[in-house]
Amino acid sequence: MTDVAEGTLLIIGGAEDKEGDCEILREFVRLAGKRKGPLVIMTAAAQYPQKVSREYLKIFRRLGDEEVISLDIPSREHAQLSSSAKTITSAGGVFFTGGDQLRITSLLGGTEVDLALHEAYKKGTIIAGTSAGASVMSATMIIGGDEDSTPYPGSISMGPGMGLVHQVVIDQHFAQRGRLGRLVSAVAKQPAILGVGIDEDTAVLIDSNNHMQVIGSQTVTVVDGNNCEHTNVSEAEPKQPLGITAITVHILPRGYGYDFQNRQALVPEEEKNEAR
Amino acid sequence: MTDVAEGTLLIIGGAEDKEGDCEILREFVRLAGKRKGPLVIMTAAAQYPQKVSREYLKIFRRLGDEEVISLDIPSREHAQLSSSAKTITSAGGVFFTGGDQLRITSLLGGTEVDLALHEAYKKGTIIAGTSAGASVMSATMIIGGDEDSTPYPGSISMGPGMGLVHQVVIDQHFAQRGRLGRLVSAVAKQPAILGVGIDEDTAVLIDSNNHMQVIGSQTVTVVDGNNCEHTNVSEAEPKQPLGITAITVHILPRGYGYDFQNRQALVPEEEKNEAR
Repeated sequence: MTDVAEGTLLIIGGAEDKEGDCEILREFVRLAGKRKGPLVIMTAAAQYPQKVSREYLKIFRRLGDEEVISLDIPSREHAQLSSSAKTITSAGGVFFTGGDQLRITSLLGGTEVDLALHEAYKKGTIIAGTSAGASVMSATMIIGGDEDSTPYPGSISMGPGMGLVHQVVIDQHFAQRGRLGRLVSAVAKQPAILGVGIDEDTAVLIDSNNHMQVIGSQTVTVVDGNNCEHTNVSEAEPKQPLGITAITVHILPRGYGYDFQNRQALVPEEEKNEAR
Repeated sequence: MTDVAEGTLLIIGGAEDKEGDCEILREFVRLAGKRKGPLVIMTAAAQYPQKVSREYLKIFRRLGDEEVISLDIPSREHAQLSSSAKTITSAGGVFFTGGDQLRITSLLGGTEVDLALHEAYKKGTIIAGTSAGASVMSATMIIGGDEDSTPYPGSISMGPGMGLVHQVVIDQHFAQRGRLGRLVSAVAKQPAILGVGIDEDTAVLIDSNNHMQVIGSQTVTVVDGNNCEHTNVSEAEPKQPLGITAITVHILPRGYGYDFQNRQALVPEEEKNEAR
């Protein structure tokens, strides 16, 4: 298995707490604060970037980071500017807001900003994303699909993402929008890929050791199709119900983790002692 | 493992097709037609039984069964009448409509009608139920719970059902209402129990050989916690997210089945040849 991640990623399932303890955003500020350079808000996914950047500027400043800037990229031309790229390479942390994941990939893909992002990431800059900004992290990303629905081969639409994390496909707002069906549909198509469904106000921290750790108030659902015994995904029509047997599912709250190399859920030490 | 079923059950996930091919209701009429006696509609779950019985009387007659009656049971007194009990024991098939599962158990539990139902069932009368009428079939039934939500220990409320099927807990309107979380919460509490989540317009036929077969247009999700490696269900607070690792999930469309004895999904022969 290729390494899943090269640097540190914080992938958030959307609707993260912005008024209370702000567990997830606070963790981002803490991690970004370990490095020099400002915290950069990327609003490329947002239809109304000003509104979104105002909101996050306020929150991150409140959480203690005085050095926060917003990089609004309204066109591919802007994404080719060396000044934009430099903003990324000199960032302490980069935060992708929500919106539409296709706006991110179509605006940034292959540009100077894209290259700068990968460069910064490999050098240890933490890259975070919420909602659409979460989906976009993986090599193959979920563009859209059915919700609260039985899985069909056609219940999910996928495409190339920003490729910061490999061997996984990420879904967000997961339990809250009934997205198991579409994630299973993705995993059935290529069981080497692990399905990671992140609930709202919940996030995963993925490090370069192929380990993932869960933070936030809800859970992360990992769908592992490697031991799948049978699926009809290649024979079924797009709207014909999917059959798939023996997939492994883990439901992981705060403190739990996952070892991508060994495809093994990680249970907190204190819980191992208490529970069976 | 105790036998799961003693006779034949048709358990429907609600919202079954009533205007098109009526695959599921037609199968019920066909199976009930193999035995003497009328087809009996049980409206005990319904708040407005007349409306519901009128609808099903019309459908079942259209599907070819001329001998259809409705047994409305407005009180436990009615459920104790020997005439009510006789209607059940002389039925060719019994069909429980939707509504509220607690209405069924609180009206019928321990009465003559309850006894008659078990007697008829053991003698081979097919017992069917949709929605609330599906939930009620199991020894422990789901009364209610959260939808489109992360699983918590407290995200499901359960109680004693009619006990026609053992070792399983049944959920209905499954994918359509995002009920994976609550079914996982049920299975985490007692992994010996198999979670069976039935989608709308989908049903399982369970026979006395411990086999289940799927019919209808959507899928059945089987949640098997037997190989679960860890859960925090007994330590977590009711509203604290559930952790559970390594549960096995099968998603089964029409033609697929499940062997309860061996906890094994059954794939149609023709698909075995085509697929891996």
